Amino acid sequence: MKLYDYAFSSAAYRARIALNLKGIAYERAVISLIKDGGQQHSAAYKEINPQALIPTLEADGHTIGQSLAIVEYLDEVYPSPPLLPSYPAEKARVRQIAYEIACDIHPVNNMRIRAQLKAMGHSEDEIMTKWYAHWITLGFAALETQLSASKETGKYCHGDRPTLADICLVPQMANAYRFKVPVDAFPTLVRIDKTAREHPAFAAAAPEKQPDAA
Amino acid sequence: MKLYDYAFSSAAYRARIALNLKGIAYERAVISLIKDGGQQHSAAYKEINPQALIPTLEADGHTIGQSLAIVEYLDEVYPSPPLLPSYPAEKARVRQIAYEIACDIHPVNNMRIRAQLKAMGHSEDEIMTKWYAHWITLGFAALETQLSASKETGKYCHGDRPTLADICLVPQMANAYRFKVPVDAFPTLVRIDKTAREHPAFAAAAPEKQPDAA
Repeated sequence: MKLYDYAFSSAAYRARIALNLKGIAYERAVISLIKDGGQQHSAAYKEINPQALIPTLEADGHTIGQSLAIVEYLDEVYPSPPLLPSYPAEKARVRQIAYEIACDIHPVNNMRIRAQLKAMGHSEDEIMTKWYAHWITLGFAALETQLSASKETGKYCHGDRPTLADICLVPQMANAYRFKVPVDAFPTLVRIDKTAREHPAFAAAAPEKQPDAA
Repeated sequence: MKLYDYAFSSAAYRARIALNLKGIAYERAVISLIKDGGQQHSAAYKEINPQALIPTLEADGHTIGQSLAIVEYLDEVYPSPPLLPSYPAEKARVRQIAYEIACDIHPVNNMRIRAQLKAMGHSEDEIMTKWYAHWITLGFAALETQLSASKETGKYCHGDRPTLADICLVPQMANAYRFKVPVDAFPTLVRIDKTAREHPAFAAAAPEKQPDAA
């Protein structure tokens, strides 16, 4: 397997966690979002991923973009350990948590969005306070309410084993810490993130552990 | 089943299409995103959906937020007709297309984002040209490249039957038409959207067909 990857892409971080949880060895092709004005814009990479976004997985002769499509694919083809619970209503709960992050927090804050805000005249400081921190705080507040109220929440977002929800939560928490967005108001998220980061599959996927993080 | 719904919410539109494709009768609870400063912000609705977003489905004793979690749930519990293909790699292709829209186009442009841009000093015109149309055009360009190049594309995004990908495409195309974003450069998307909108399940789910559209 080959993952088109970048240490600090939080979508790619999700794919790394899933691959590690499944115990799948993979080759990394680093696509720097910084160097050469963003290597994801090269004609060669856009042949592989027309969206010019990271990650892409080459697996079993298939080319798959979108991190959540990658995780669902891995979970189907390599079912152990499962990344989703067995029952449909539980799967729905896990997917709901995952999508709250993967649809409503992460893409609204990613690098190309911040670049567009800059092009529209906003300072770094304004982008961080009025935009980046705003959407993380709003999204985390909803998640904290849900997770703290539910008996289905365990050591992880759903029960005591990592799922797709944690695969989305940990990279988003990493972004919050990296950009100094306060998370004190979200003790359940902080606790789950801490637990997950101690898991070897999550630990090995951390941005700072990747060779291109230097 | 009960769907917390709003005619012009394109995420809710996805849930309506899926329910119709499955032939499931449902009750609508209209949550106006306009009236009363946005009824989704009421304490009563936030009990049901802490994100204060539309849609939410009450089904079989469960409360499910996030439109794609709703569609996946329906597809598992009511498997006929399927909304995803059978093979994992084909499922991945359909999910990739769906997420390109549901993660990278729609949430970046939704109402709360436009309200935040307005609060940051941008005019309606600027929001439409430099933001709304920008992200639709960028996302559609990638999709057009992918769909036009693939033999797996048929009458619909994947083969000749509607899938999760079309459930995401049609509401996004509706937004493009509604806000007069040019789509001439995307003939494959235009063709698939037109085909899908002629399907009775899609037609009945259209915003203008809902009683609260008036």
